[in-house]
Amino acid sequence: MSKVDFNNEIIDEIKNFISANNNKKLKETLKDIHYADIAELIDNLNIDEATYLIKLLKSDTTADALAEIDDEKREKILKNLSAKEIAEELTELDTDDAVDIISELPEERKERVISQIEDDKHIEDIRELLNYDENTAGGLMAKELVKVNENLSVLKCLNEMRSQAENVTRVHSIYVVDGKNKLKGRLSLKDLITANSKAKVKDIFIPNVDYVYVNEENEEVARKMSKYDLEAIPVINSKKELLGRITIDDIVDVIKEEAEKDYQLAAGISNDVEPDDNILNLVKARLPWLFLGLLGGLGSVFILEKFELIMEKPELRNLFFYTPLIAAMAGNVGVQSSAIIVQGLANNALKGSLFNRLIKEIGLSLINGLALAFILVLAGKLFDQNLIVSLTIGGSMILVIIVAALVGTFVPILLDKRGIDPAIATGPFITTCNDILGIFLFFYIAKFALGF
Amino acid sequence: MSKVDFNNEIIDEIKNFISANNNKKLKETLKDIHYADIAELIDNLNIDEATYLIKLLKSDTTADALAEIDDEKREKILKNLSAKEIAEELTELDTDDAVDIISELPEERKERVISQIEDDKHIEDIRELLNYDENTAGGLMAKELVKVNENLSVLKCLNEMRSQAENVTRVHSIYVVDGKNKLKGRLSLKDLITANSKAKVKDIFIPNVDYVYVNEENEEVARKMSKYDLEAIPVINSKKELLGRITIDDIVDVIKEEAEKDYQLAAGISNDVEPDDNILNLVKARLPWLFLGLLGGLGSVFILEKFELIMEKPELRNLFFYTPLIAAMAGNVGVQSSAIIVQGLANNALKGSLFNRLIKEIGLSLINGLALAFILVLAGKLFDQNLIVSLTIGGSMILVIIVAALVGTFVPILLDKRGIDPAIATGPFITTCNDILGIFLFFYIAKFALGF
Repeated sequence: MSKVDFNNEIIDEIKNFISANNNKKLKETLKDIHYADIAELIDNLNIDEATYLIKLLKSDTTADALAEIDDEKREKILKNLSAKEIAEELTELDTDDAVDIISELPEERKERVISQIEDDKHIEDIRELLNYDENTAGGLMAKELVKVNENLSVLKCLNEMRSQAENVTRVHSIYVVDGKNKLKGRLSLKDLITANSKAKVKDIFIPNVDYVYVNEENEEVARKMSKYDLEAIPVINSKKELLGRITIDDIVDVIKEEAEKDYQLAAGISNDVEPDDNILNLVKARLPWLFLGLLGGLGSVFILEKFELIMEKPELRNLFFYTPLIAAMAGNVGVQSSAIIVQGLANNALKGSLFNRLIKEIGLSLINGLALAFILVLAGKLFDQNLIVSLTIGGSMILVIIVAALVGTFVPILLDKRGIDPAIATGPFITTCNDILGIFLFFYIAKFALGF
Repeated sequence: MSKVDFNNEIIDEIKNFISANNNKKLKETLKDIHYADIAELIDNLNIDEATYLIKLLKSDTTADALAEIDDEKREKILKNLSAKEIAEELTELDTDDAVDIISELPEERKERVISQIEDDKHIEDIRELLNYDENTAGGLMAKELVKVNENLSVLKCLNEMRSQAENVTRVHSIYVVDGKNKLKGRLSLKDLITANSKAKVKDIFIPNVDYVYVNEENEEVARKMSKYDLEAIPVINSKKELLGRITIDDIVDVIKEEAEKDYQLAAGISNDVEPDDNILNLVKARLPWLFLGLLGGLGSVFILEKFELIMEKPELRNLFFYTPLIAAMAGNVGVQSSAIIVQGLANNALKGSLFNRLIKEIGLSLINGLALAFILVLAGKLFDQNLIVSLTIGGSMILVIIVAALVGTFVPILLDKRGIDPAIATGPFITTCNDILGIFLFFYIAKFALGF
């Protein structure tokens, strides 16, 4: 299949062909195009155009493209296809992708689509996979794999592989099982190529094989495969029976999604959204965090009101001018600390005791705080500010920075210990907490130091 | 090689063995352990302990572990090893990993280490790879690959592969070249297994092969391999000569590093840091962004000072109480918008015209803003605030939200157009800009509405 980068010109041309129902030109233009490019093209079409294209082209091109595109768009396209049309697409797909698509269908439609699939083995495999939680190894695995019985000879093994390989897109590993389908090991292609053809699989297989259990979590599978540089991993149940295999391309997707989720959480976006989602989805993903920020802001209003009277004293009014600065510093420091901890937790890179971490954060914040306070006092001079007031502002900022760093460090650790995703603590949540806390500390320290 | 999860107990035991120089126990405990686990263990040891271990264990275990660990730690360990010891480790590594390590050595040490490597071919390959920029395909690729001449018969091809496969950890693809080493295509293992052994490579190879040029950027290689689900890709020069290959495990690392970098930038951390880096590195990564925040904060001080006189009017003082709230909303909204755009740019998912994007952001912000302003006015009632003042605060917040969303949307797009990494605009930079802009708009809108 050839690969293209669809630019706007080609896309417009294709849109024109579609609106003119020029099927001949469409087929010509899209002949032998890689499914990943077809998927990219569909991303650039509206639902009707995409549906038209999918009905027009053969399922062996469109099936994998359908599996690649955004869930939301796919759902809408599938609504325009008949059960039979969907079944045709699914027949072309590996079981893992087929199940991903089926599981998005409404319950009663699922059955109608499955009953239209012609290959009984495919149906059976799909039904099995539908049972697993999508966030586990079972939800990631495909039934397509190459396995041989340990008692075969190398020659028979090659024959067996030939017939199995027909149904498997890529042969990653050849798994070795016993008569009860229990995973015994794997065959290396290298060993197979170099082995005497009369040797038995038993004699040459590698018993040391990595595997995951079918109910292990996605992220754990991703961690294992990326740590040990595995390109495929077999999936077994508690009886060690070989159920399927997971390939690295699906893990790349898990890693990417995980990173995007963390990134969006850090930015205060709760659902997985894309720039082209509709406004309502974007509002749903963004408004809750803004609401949290608003509550925090109202908290500061409440604190600041208590100090209204110092507005009467011109030399103290400056404290109010500095509140956004203090809040911003507290927020920024907290986000920095929490981001480092969240990544450390994700990479298993947090070593050393909590006490050491405490000392380190305090030391670090003291250095940063002193440097920033120095500049602040200098700036105070420029604003012709009372030196005592400047020193008070600088000093309390140092304390605010230390506290914000500690909150940013220990809140994610605490969440993680309680089994809550610590990434939730990197964004607006930690910023909002530190905003209020910062303003609170700032005014009470100033009150104590300046004696008002 | 067996795999373990080192818990603190085992690590303490190993530390004890090291301090007691109990080599026998150490070798026994660490026999046949996977290099990724040895790497994890080294992460938990101090430099002296790690050096001890590396000198003790055989290079075929430690070499890959050395390649896995953090650069900073490796640099320190390498200082404790002789040129000959380092050369022994490098001999065990694939050329890409060997070059990654060598390139970190000081110039004069490089030469001494290379001269101690015994295999001349390995030296030649390493020297070649040292020439490429580490952020390009050339910097990622390894020289180890399996290639066959198009004129060979399948039988000869199998023999050829047998001898080459000895030096290649994993056979991903068999590349087909002509007499001048120009890439012609690839052989599928499946086709090779199923082919008649008298057939020629020429007759069965697949001419349609993906490749990247040696000077293509890392990120472009990652995008291609992950889009097209490739597990290995050959690297060629402008003459189409086959130079090396890149495997998916290196790409997984690129994707992870890229995601971590973006995440850290969004959190206001400029260098790649880990929780256990020393304080100085952490200060260097964090202080510049805090300094930026401080400048922004001083900007708000400057703006707020201009409105000092309204502190004389009790009914207007509330405006000052709301500044942290306004700044926080502006900051949060900007980060949300920019994060969505930055991810969209990274995933090539930004479609539609700039004008549509403008309309959408305004619509979205209007909905969010109205919802939040409604709550704000209600809260104003609770604070016994003048209704006109509440409405003014709510109204200007809506405008601030719209402007902040537009800044968050269009600054990254602009940076991207100018070839600057837009991720830089997600963190403190956009927050700081929006903080000041928000406070500025807030007070001037209030001034206009309330006529002070």
